[in-house]
Amino acid sequence: MNIDVILFSDFETLDVFGPIEVFGKLDDRSIRYFSEKGGLISNRDGVKIETERLEELTQPDILFIPGGMGTRKEIENDNFISKLKEIALNSRFVLTVCTGSALLAKTGLLDTKQATSNKRAFDWVASISNKVHWIRQARWVVDEKYYTSSGVSAGIDMTLGFIADQVSLEEARRIAFRIEYTWQEDKNHDDFCNQSSF
Amino acid sequence: MNIDVILFSDFETLDVFGPIEVFGKLDDRSIRYFSEKGGLISNRDGVKIETERLEELTQPDILFIPGGMGTRKEIENDNFISKLKEIALNSRFVLTVCTGSALLAKTGLLDTKQATSNKRAFDWVASISNKVHWIRQARWVVDEKYYTSSGVSAGIDMTLGFIADQVSLEEARRIAFRIEYTWQEDKNHDDFCNQSSF
Repeated sequence: MNIDVILFSDFETLDVFGPIEVFGKLDDRSIRYFSEKGGLISNRDGVKIETERLEELTQPDILFIPGGMGTRKEIENDNFISKLKEIALNSRFVLTVCTGSALLAKTGLLDTKQATSNKRAFDWVASISNKVHWIRQARWVVDEKYYTSSGVSAGIDMTLGFIADQVSLEEARRIAFRIEYTWQEDKNHDDFCNQSSF
Repeated sequence: MNIDVILFSDFETLDVFGPIEVFGKLDDRSIRYFSEKGGLISNRDGVKIETERLEELTQPDILFIPGGMGTRKEIENDNFISKLKEIALNSRFVLTVCTGSALLAKTGLLDTKQATSNKRAFDWVASISNKVHWIRQARWVVDEKYYTSSGVSAGIDMTLGFIADQVSLEEARRIAFRIEYTWQEDKNHDDFCNQSSF
């Protein structure tokens, strides 16, 4: 299983590395990191990650798109969105965390589909496309090959859910236990949908 | 608040980036990454992260030490352990996740203190020093300036606990809610201490 991660400046740290920790526990997997121009990609947590050029990414098993403040800039980057669309079309599965679903929605590939996003930026994400059936209360949403999760930590639950669907529930539980993580197994259970109350 | 992260080859991905996601949500913080020789540090999840040389790190507010398979090699690296001890002595706080506590134990600074580690490697960690009071059942343990956590995801709970202790409980809860994370607030509650059952 090849997992290919799309990075951009100011990606959200845990959006990426929660799911990667989970994928990393699969026996047979390859994980690579890409950005539009390749090289070091940094974010507000001081993380600088080495990436390959997006052009070298053609046909992932799993295309992984995180969120973060950087999505606000990338959503206006027509070249990036166009390449993202092409790669997503050729991917067996596409997983997004947080505002990563805004980037995917911008490609048009979520049109007529159900999807979710994080709660603090939900209205902004929903404004990117009114052709998507946005689900506000959900830990994660599955529609055909598209998995979209709520904010940050929800990506870990979604990735375990993806493994439960595509490998086995036992394997997902085994990984969660191994990384000492209390997995929220129910994708419809969402304790964080009323962020305005905080 | 300066958070200085020690990296080495084959560090555990989420050990680092769970806590960093939490620290990153503090208003006033600086996060830097160091390794013995500086440069790119990689691990088994394909992560390649840029670091500064350990020699440039002198007096952190918070010294952060993750675990991972790489600790098995670093525990034999006298130069690294010696530098780690010097820096830890000069730090206001030292936080470890998973087998990071084995590295800290090797410096001798945990002698006579209480500490924990992850459950899959507990016997190995405990074998590093019999002068440490190792606590098997704990999400995380606090002893003076030393915070040690159980495996991987426990680092997120410990970091929120550290913020509760040093900033406020409200701030810790606010961050957990913002990153849509269900925080295990009780450091003595541990659902994962019987790993051999899995």
